Amino acid sequence: MARTLHLNAFLYGVGHHEAAWRHPRTEPARLTDVRHYQRLAQIAERGKLDSVFLADGLALWGDVRHNALGGLEPLTLLSALAAVTERIGLIATVSTTYNEPFHVARKFASLDHISGGRAGWNIVTSAGEAEARNFGVERPAHADRYARAAEFLEVAGKLWDSWEDDAIVGDRLGGVYADTGKIHPIGHEGEHFRVAGALNTSRPPQGRPLLVQAGSSEDGKEFAARYAEAVFTAQQTFAEAREFYLDLKSRLARYGRGPGRLLVLPGISPVIGSTEREALLLEKELEELIIPAYGLSQLSTLVGIELTEDDLDRPLPEVGAETEGAQSRRALVVGLARRENLTVRRLLARLAGGRGHRVVAGTPEQIADELQAWFENGAADGFNVMPPLLPDGLADFVDHVVPVLRARGLFRSEYEGRTLREHYGLPRPASQFAGPPSRVPVAPAVRQGGGAARETAVAR
Amino acid sequence: MARTLHLNAFLYGVGHHEAAWRHPRTEPARLTDVRHYQRLAQIAERGKLDSVFLADGLALWGDVRHNALGGLEPLTLLSALAAVTERIGLIATVSTTYNEPFHVARKFASLDHISGGRAGWNIVTSAGEAEARNFGVERPAHADRYARAAEFLEVAGKLWDSWEDDAIVGDRLGGVYADTGKIHPIGHEGEHFRVAGALNTSRPPQGRPLLVQAGSSEDGKEFAARYAEAVFTAQQTFAEAREFYLDLKSRLARYGRGPGRLLVLPGISPVIGSTEREALLLEKELEELIIPAYGLSQLSTLVGIELTEDDLDRPLPEVGAETEGAQSRRALVVGLARRENLTVRRLLARLAGGRGHRVVAGTPEQIADELQAWFENGAADGFNVMPPLLPDGLADFVDHVVPVLRARGLFRSEYEGRTLREHYGLPRPASQFAGPPSRVPVAPAVRQGGGAARETAVAR
Repeated sequence: MARTLHLNAFLYGVGHHEAAWRHPRTEPARLTDVRHYQRLAQIAERGKLDSVFLADGLALWGDVRHNALGGLEPLTLLSALAAVTERIGLIATVSTTYNEPFHVARKFASLDHISGGRAGWNIVTSAGEAEARNFGVERPAHADRYARAAEFLEVAGKLWDSWEDDAIVGDRLGGVYADTGKIHPIGHEGEHFRVAGALNTSRPPQGRPLLVQAGSSEDGKEFAARYAEAVFTAQQTFAEAREFYLDLKSRLARYGRGPGRLLVLPGISPVIGSTEREALLLEKELEELIIPAYGLSQLSTLVGIELTEDDLDRPLPEVGAETEGAQSRRALVVGLARRENLTVRRLLARLAGGRGHRVVAGTPEQIADELQAWFENGAADGFNVMPPLLPDGLADFVDHVVPVLRARGLFRSEYEGRTLREHYGLPRPASQFAGPPSRVPVAPAVRQGGGAARETAVAR
Repeated sequence: MARTLHLNAFLYGVGHHEAAWRHPRTEPARLTDVRHYQRLAQIAERGKLDSVFLADGLALWGDVRHNALGGLEPLTLLSALAAVTERIGLIATVSTTYNEPFHVARKFASLDHISGGRAGWNIVTSAGEAEARNFGVERPAHADRYARAAEFLEVAGKLWDSWEDDAIVGDRLGGVYADTGKIHPIGHEGEHFRVAGALNTSRPPQGRPLLVQAGSSEDGKEFAARYAEAVFTAQQTFAEAREFYLDLKSRLARYGRGPGRLLVLPGISPVIGSTEREALLLEKELEELIIPAYGLSQLSTLVGIELTEDDLDRPLPEVGAETEGAQSRRALVVGLARRENLTVRRLLARLAGGRGHRVVAGTPEQIADELQAWFENGAADGFNVMPPLLPDGLADFVDHVVPVLRARGLFRSEYEGRTLREHYGLPRPASQFAGPPSRVPVAPAVRQGGGAARETAVAR
């Protein structure tokens, strides 16, 4: 079968445009209304999208006077979405920095059971200063966060694997519920974690949830190459996106992974009109609702300079030394300003649509053209779709862009699989504690004398 | 209105009897099947019960060879139950010992939004040795766990209160989403936690989730008297139950709380038959499915003595010095063995039904009589119902016992409220950061010169 696109719907309050909550086509009170998100997931499922995704942070970050912030926690929300959908994947952002692997592994195992194998974990390391202050610690350095994340993943992997697939026997008559030889204490002793295991939730349907990652720093890319199966990334230009794509794929071999084991999904915010003029009009409407103070405060934090309304019609000032934190996002924003020689006001307008992700305004055909060009020319395996207004922008994408992609043979008409891994064409990992996949039945005579075989079993 | 019962359905795999998974009326594969729990919640809601409740522990505790263990995580599961129910309360067990208040406060705020005000938190402190080993720490002492729990509750309370009820303005035209003067950094600096706040989820519908507690140690009772609004307790006899009830209620005054602010709900496992003979037959069927090795291992851990099958037909041996951990449960079990002069085998049979909770076998009328007697004579405000088999035992209770209670005027026929607090007749707490409930509007002239008024505002 020909290679086809993977599409994820990034659910984000009432829309990705920072002024979405002010637009007459949204209802900001829906920010904490589960029915809003259930409807979004059902729209995405109607379009046969691979998955929906929820971002997260562990602090009230940003200017809540001027934007609709303070919504729901991703894991609790995704369970409620699982209950009203059948097929679509469900990806939640959870940090490795202020969490314990036992809790996180267990919650994702539980979500994977609840959804019948549709759970995905977007792994983040919580760069923010405000996040550290909610956990009573100093913000850890970038490298330390990634070192912790790597060990966290190692522990979580062991916990998901701790019940072999066939550990549950369920022999009611004989009184044997589980074969305890197939439930393994993990006995992890590392630099950051000591975890005895086994997990107290049996092996999830997918074996492990799909692992997603979004950081684009050097540490982030190396982490993704080692662990991630999908990467959400912000790329403004085709050239940058292609370079990122090749860079990431080239790193896979050193971890013994083929290029198909990690899918690269750049973000795109599609501003859709039935004519190009209508799309540009919607873009302009949203731009007029921008509150400069909001964008200035976000941008000031990102670049580490206090910007004011006096700076609006000047170029972005020289930025100082790199701050710890969202390094790759910062480079992207400064790069955009310099490349296109933007004033601060124009830069804010460009960032307002997708927080640094690419915004494309046009007809469904024009948007499909863009997606196709990136997909067919080595810049993307699919896209993280970030509608400016929700639910309308997602419904427009599903009802008008997806059919064009389908007509071009670029996207599925029906789900072929049941699990998120199946949608993304990724294998179900075997438990690291299980024996070889095709065990030859051992004859009783051999088994009795089988010292070596027995040792192997013990060593497992 | 006359005082009426409160009833909670304690959902526990395929039943509370330890041999439930072996009984032909259950399907042990449902242990990780969300539809099973959704059906249970819907049965409980059909009966207009106050709530459903999920226990939890942070380790694979117990003998998984002989019992169906390894189910779902409570918070993720309750969101999925919220999605298919309308009115019933949803109570999850979460530990304060291996968690951070920011995460826990946020997840309960999220569940409360998702369920429209139906969230409750059963606060536990994780006594187990196996739990400590999953978090790389030594098991903290009893008093330390309760000291941490108290500060944890204080922080969680501040976080739930950090958005005042009217903080969200939603002025689209004026571009003001929230009144930031009504969103409060909590700046908590304590012995166990430093948390800056505010929470990044707006104030939940109930203000705070319902707070539930289950420990019956001295520390546990004092903690309950201070914080809890409902207590799940294990009581074998009316005399003990009444003593516990009076003891707990008498402690409330020192925290400025009236006796109606904390409801005492003893556990009861009803073994229901259409005749008494049928009920006793079911009890016997279950008893015959008991695997002695399972109960022996549980009991050995609890009393701190290694018991073997040789001990089965002897009295329980003298138990040594108290171990750290489940002190009150241990006292209950030893007390039961001594009072009724039970052999270990008989003790195991008594514990198999409800892990130390009271088991009552009989007709619906007989069970209703028992509930009524405890309720009307100062031993209970209601009950934590623990059916031996699920779903059948819950359906039997709802369809046969509840109508008897209703006919006697002891239980509601319809929900009167929408939230869990309303079902339990408990008030919605005001935010500690809010001004007095009826603020008199301040005239502009006064406001300008109002140094004192401004100081008050700042001090809030």
